[in-house]
Amino acid sequence: MAESKAAKPEKKIENLGEEIVTEIRTGTAPKFITLSRTRSNVLFDSKKGYLKLGENKEERNFVNVSQSKRFMQTIAIASKCHRFIRENLHTTIRGLFYQLKFSLGEDIDENVFSEQAESNPLIEDLEVSLGLKREEMNLNANRKGVLAGNMKIIDTFGNEKIEIDCTKQGRSGWAIPSDVDNDIEFVNVKAKYVLVVEKDALWQRLNEDLFWKKENCILITPQGQAARGTRRLIKKLSDKGLPVYVFTDSDAWGWYIYWTIKTGSINLAYIGADVATPDAKFLGVTMSDLDKYEFLNKLTINASEIDIKRAQEMLNYEWIGKYKEWKVELERMIKSKKKLEQDALQGPRLTFVDDYIRDKIKNKEYLP
Amino acid sequence: MAESKAAKPEKKIENLGEEIVTEIRTGTAPKFITLSRTRSNVLFDSKKGYLKLGENKEERNFVNVSQSKRFMQTIAIASKCHRFIRENLHTTIRGLFYQLKFSLGEDIDENVFSEQAESNPLIEDLEVSLGLKREEMNLNANRKGVLAGNMKIIDTFGNEKIEIDCTKQGRSGWAIPSDVDNDIEFVNVKAKYVLVVEKDALWQRLNEDLFWKKENCILITPQGQAARGTRRLIKKLSDKGLPVYVFTDSDAWGWYIYWTIKTGSINLAYIGADVATPDAKFLGVTMSDLDKYEFLNKLTINASEIDIKRAQEMLNYEWIGKYKEWKVELERMIKSKKKLEQDALQGPRLTFVDDYIRDKIKNKEYLP
Repeated sequence: MAESKAAKPEKKIENLGEEIVTEIRTGTAPKFITLSRTRSNVLFDSKKGYLKLGENKEERNFVNVSQSKRFMQTIAIASKCHRFIRENLHTTIRGLFYQLKFSLGEDIDENVFSEQAESNPLIEDLEVSLGLKREEMNLNANRKGVLAGNMKIIDTFGNEKIEIDCTKQGRSGWAIPSDVDNDIEFVNVKAKYVLVVEKDALWQRLNEDLFWKKENCILITPQGQAARGTRRLIKKLSDKGLPVYVFTDSDAWGWYIYWTIKTGSINLAYIGADVATPDAKFLGVTMSDLDKYEFLNKLTINASEIDIKRAQEMLNYEWIGKYKEWKVELERMIKSKKKLEQDALQGPRLTFVDDYIRDKIKNKEYLP
Repeated sequence: MAESKAAKPEKKIENLGEEIVTEIRTGTAPKFITLSRTRSNVLFDSKKGYLKLGENKEERNFVNVSQSKRFMQTIAIASKCHRFIRENLHTTIRGLFYQLKFSLGEDIDENVFSEQAESNPLIEDLEVSLGLKREEMNLNANRKGVLAGNMKIIDTFGNEKIEIDCTKQGRSGWAIPSDVDNDIEFVNVKAKYVLVVEKDALWQRLNEDLFWKKENCILITPQGQAARGTRRLIKKLSDKGLPVYVFTDSDAWGWYIYWTIKTGSINLAYIGADVATPDAKFLGVTMSDLDKYEFLNKLTINASEIDIKRAQEMLNYEWIGKYKEWKVELERMIKSKKKLEQDALQGPRLTFVDDYIRDKIKNKEYLP
């Protein structure tokens, strides 16, 4: 059989199984190798601009008493995912968890085989070890995020090729799915740039103004922190050559959303190359906006202790603190104990936010 | 001018303004009347089957020193909303809050005019007093929820009539907006019933199986607790004569989701008639499923103290405790201290959940 794209994840899992069988037959202890995902093995790749795993390997060994149960569980997960791929059906890590509970039987208690505490890292072990994303093992992650703009989606779904025109989704927008890689294509991307807006409320505001049409951009909201699917989609649009501008609150949470899109996150360092968009720029709102837009000074709100603590931490991240523009921003919030929400731009009039974004892009007033 | 549907909310706000002006001119204290939204004025209408406000009225009086500030704020809100309607632009209560801060000026501190503590009830005062929903005053509420099935949407958006075919939304589904009443129509509703599935993950599972196509239903997930728009849409589909079945976890949160859809909620009692679907039925999962589906017994999880406390409270709600079927369910959880997730139905095989739902509906095995 020719190795089709679809067969690949299936084959990778089969190879793992075959290796283990061979080890058993030759009297070798079954094992597999994964990369360590501990904090000390998460590195910032300053050349590429994202967080990734280092080289530290970890071995999961069946005959090591402290590892044998987890080893067994991991193989059970691999086996289940192999079946999902063959059935061409998807589920979540919760659905997987119940399949494991069902077939491993004997009243395995929630506390003994809890997905939060146990299944999750084992799935990640497999992702890293096999070089597969969970989406390729037919495990959907949480989805969140909405999109409008001049592009089309070809979603191969239920044996049909469904075409979705992202200029024809009205007030709703197109809901970004968990998996934006398999059986789905993004075509006719005629927009000039991507604008990522933290809050759905503001996305709706801009969508109502047909901002994406007037400015010919792709308007995305991750609806808060970006889910895997949304991060991956932003990266894919960036790979098509579109500039990506991120527009969030000027507070710890907003900055976190931006940096997660740009450099990836510690938790997802193991797929950093796929979900980080190092070319992304930060459009605002910024503490410096307070100088340019006088009225914003009466619309600031008090920064929380968490905001200030996080801002101090971010100053110490090499990939943030190295930018003098970010140093200025973070230090200004720490000193003034004030923060600013993107919603504040609706103060003078509802459409002010449109002009704000247009000006920022036109004048290249964004942070790295 | 003929009183068009669109002009109505605008006119209602104008009438309020005119009354106040008249009162000022005639030397009467400006005031307006609203219904009390305190717990003691929330009643269950057993004939109609939903929570609504009683007859207790409250007067907001400008010359009452304890009310004058709130009176002023309420009028400011009415004035802003009046403008939003005239501009034909929408925002959120957060956007409104910033407009108030901007134009009422003079460093009104977050703590003095906080939307959480103050704006929200004032908006509700206006909704009740004017007989308008906030969506009619161009204030979008949070949106959440997704839909697929045999129906079409005509969304009048950006001066275009956009047609959305809910059988052609692929893996994503159609994202349910905040406002499902104004400039939007639901046509060609050819499905036989509505199935509401608590979790997005399970919605995706069923969507992948084209359950809505095979069973000719409208498949909705509120993605947890239903937002205003989703509740209103379920009600509208029920008004079209479609039976509504709700499928949640068997735990306090799942039951709360169901009862909120069916009878409305205390917080939204003031719009109970518009958002409650008294004809909704509860499909599962149920504690009684443990008798019918042997395998589920090893897939229960421990009920939390909150689950048990809430179940006890629900027994005491007249509109729940009156059903013997619900008494059995609630008491079984309290006694066994076990609960059951809808995801557990994926235990034997991923498509088991499809059969479960089909059987329940076919055999009319649902709770009132």
